[in-house]
Amino acid sequence: MNKIRGTIEIEFPSEEIAKIVYESVLFEHLSVPYRRSEIEFKREGNRIILHFTAQDNSALRGTLNSYLRWIKVAMDVAEL
Amino acid sequence: MNKIRGTIEIEFPSEEIAKIVYESVLFEHLSVPYRRSEIEFKREGNRIILHFTAQDNSALRGTLNSYLRWIKVAMDVAEL
Repeated sequence: MNKIRGTIEIEFPSEEIAKIVYESVLFEHLSVPYRRSEIEFKREGNRIILHFTAQDNSALRGTLNSYLRWIKVAMDVAEL
Repeated sequence: MNKIRGTIEIEFPSEEIAKIVYESVLFEHLSVPYRRSEIEFKREGNRIILHFTAQDNSALRGTLNSYLRWIKVAMDVAEL
């Protein structure tokens, strides 16, 4: 099974909210020593964009779960 | 907090694999009586595309978790 590529793009109601969520998730993104997938994580205005290339199915699930959890926590903390 | 919109796009190694995963997840997609988010779920060649609009943060997480779980199960079953 070759690599699985994909993109997650989430549009927030304002650039300010996107910035808050992006910066807190960026901290997690940068502190992960070993990644099971290649990740490009960026913000464009009010949108957070995650490009990923996963080695396999479980790496795909593991990676997406981590980033979705971080996004959720960031939104909870910011009471969004 | 207004709605959160987004897209998940996953590119599979072949159109055939994308078809297998898409058709099994479509079954789940169609059988969900009540959705906490508006979802557009489609396949384009070897890509599965999910457009979503979530009412709030937890609806976002709940919806994405369900679709990612279905995608993972479909891939496991198809031994991808």
